[in-house]
Amino acid sequence: MESIEEKVSNKQVLAKDYINGNPKATDMYLKSSTISLQLPPDTSNAVLVKNLYLSCDPYMRGTKKRDSRLFYSFSPDSPIIGYGVCKVVDSTHPGFNRGDLVWGVTKWEEYTVITITDSLFKIEHTDIPLSYYTGILGMPGMTAYAGLYEIGVPKKGDHVFVSSAVGAVGQLAGQLAKLMGCYVVGSAGSKEKVEILKNKFDFDGAFNYKEEHDFNAVLKRYFPEGIDIYFENVGGDMLEAALLNMKRRGRIVVAGMISQYELDEPQGIKNLVNIVYKQIKIEAFTVYDYYHLYPKFLETILPYIREGKVTYIEDTDEGLESGPAALERLFTGQNAGKQVIVVAQE
Amino acid sequence: MESIEEKVSNKQVLAKDYINGNPKATDMYLKSSTISLQLPPDTSNAVLVKNLYLSCDPYMRGTKKRDSRLFYSFSPDSPIIGYGVCKVVDSTHPGFNRGDLVWGVTKWEEYTVITITDSLFKIEHTDIPLSYYTGILGMPGMTAYAGLYEIGVPKKGDHVFVSSAVGAVGQLAGQLAKLMGCYVVGSAGSKEKVEILKNKFDFDGAFNYKEEHDFNAVLKRYFPEGIDIYFENVGGDMLEAALLNMKRRGRIVVAGMISQYELDEPQGIKNLVNIVYKQIKIEAFTVYDYYHLYPKFLETILPYIREGKVTYIEDTDEGLESGPAALERLFTGQNAGKQVIVVAQE
Repeated sequence: MESIEEKVSNKQVLAKDYINGNPKATDMYLKSSTISLQLPPDTSNAVLVKNLYLSCDPYMRGTKKRDSRLFYSFSPDSPIIGYGVCKVVDSTHPGFNRGDLVWGVTKWEEYTVITITDSLFKIEHTDIPLSYYTGILGMPGMTAYAGLYEIGVPKKGDHVFVSSAVGAVGQLAGQLAKLMGCYVVGSAGSKEKVEILKNKFDFDGAFNYKEEHDFNAVLKRYFPEGIDIYFENVGGDMLEAALLNMKRRGRIVVAGMISQYELDEPQGIKNLVNIVYKQIKIEAFTVYDYYHLYPKFLETILPYIREGKVTYIEDTDEGLESGPAALERLFTGQNAGKQVIVVAQE
Repeated sequence: MESIEEKVSNKQVLAKDYINGNPKATDMYLKSSTISLQLPPDTSNAVLVKNLYLSCDPYMRGTKKRDSRLFYSFSPDSPIIGYGVCKVVDSTHPGFNRGDLVWGVTKWEEYTVITITDSLFKIEHTDIPLSYYTGILGMPGMTAYAGLYEIGVPKKGDHVFVSSAVGAVGQLAGQLAKLMGCYVVGSAGSKEKVEILKNKFDFDGAFNYKEEHDFNAVLKRYFPEGIDIYFENVGGDMLEAALLNMKRRGRIVVAGMISQYELDEPQGIKNLVNIVYKQIKIEAFTVYDYYHLYPKFLETILPYIREGKVTYIEDTDEGLESGPAALERLFTGQNAGKQVIVVAQE
């Protein structure tokens, strides 16, 4: 027996095709479809959500390395897949009720039926802007927390270098290190971003890597005694320079190596042998292995946000239709702070 | 007041000069000097030892990277410095008595005055050949133990690859992994060594790297599902191939990168970016940071040796004068098993 349900309009952003490398706005298109606001009665363990905020993240790109564990944002004529903050409109899942606010993996459209609910976290604390759950309180925040504490293992007084330091992950990693009493220097790709690092995040130093030709000399200047922790987001020449400037038993926390993914053949890292001379650890990780720490993370970070001890910068665009251009901007480094798309106010 | 003491002859092996890279027999010379068998009464915290066994180890080479933490084996017209097993002949140190057996850092000569006694360990278990304290029960054994357990963190069923697997460190690392229920494959540089790995150490597989041209293909053959732990002693092309064949969350335990030290410019490692795709940890270490585990190590390893559960192979030369050639052979890979020089039977 089928009920005749009212359908509503559902704007979507779809991928034209699989992509290679960084997405461009022209790789996506807008479409208007329709959706019922009630889940079919025979679906179980699903939620239908209204998407409020959508997240642009650096992993949302094409790659030659297809790791079956990870989801891909781009499939032909399918809505872009990514993180978002959503309100539950209908649910056949015992863990979620109509009206619940959640964050997790959704799609770039107004309404989404989510059947893989493992990645959804209920939002319990709403005194903080909901959009923060795409960033500082969501996946990028957990990435910074897990990388810094679980892999970097900072001690008071450690000297910490963060590349891509204004990005959603870098800005929190650096501020958490500062709060632990570390000396923190960040790199970023514009004068404006360097100002943010120095004045808004209170880093001890910051430089624009586009204006520097000798990364080794720059790091020597900021770290005359060497680096204890390098929070690595870029790879390539910056990694080469960092390897020369690490202290004995330094830790390189690898959140990403964004400079390498687009190359036909990745750059050979000549200074790797330095890890032997200085007993260095290099460890790459994915946040998926650390979500069990999310409650502990919230306990740490919520008071910091409420007390104004961490600052968080968002770069917000209004409307689902702004999504393709916003995502392209993320990869050309034109955004400053976490790139968020506002689809709907609650 | 000075006592007139009887002096005895003291044969020595001295370095002609500082060296660059691997030592050759011709970089050293023999000399006969004399020594008193009593410490001068005004020396404190020193021991005078008779050297019984001297150890040839891969760190005994010249390097462009002078790390002030480490001692250097070669200084002009000075006895070679290295590990050995010794008997205390006289002592002004409260922790050591005449007749004690010790292992630690000594010099290539018949008798040595040791003033830096931090590195000396008393030998309590003498039911096992004393020469073993230059190898499986000494620094190389501790290196294997610390690297495998503290950095590799093996689990039953893990797939483990060991390069330089017949060396003093590699042979124990592989056998300890086998005893944990791991699948273990080793590489070595001769047919004879490959036979030792398969037949004496009971490795699951072994190959002669000098007969292989495509390390990636070899590792794929031995590890169709990938490598959990790579116990790395060589670097370069073997590391490139291992990076391609690591499993997700694999661990690369870096005890050394011996293929790289002689190069004017070390080889660029192109596959390093794979650590991001597979969340790999690469960690280099030195045994000096793990000697606090020595008592725990002995508890583990002594029963294995007594019960015949680990096999240990030594390559022994008789007489101090055999030292220079023995050390050269270590670096040309002609030895099979731990290279030891017998200076004196107790």
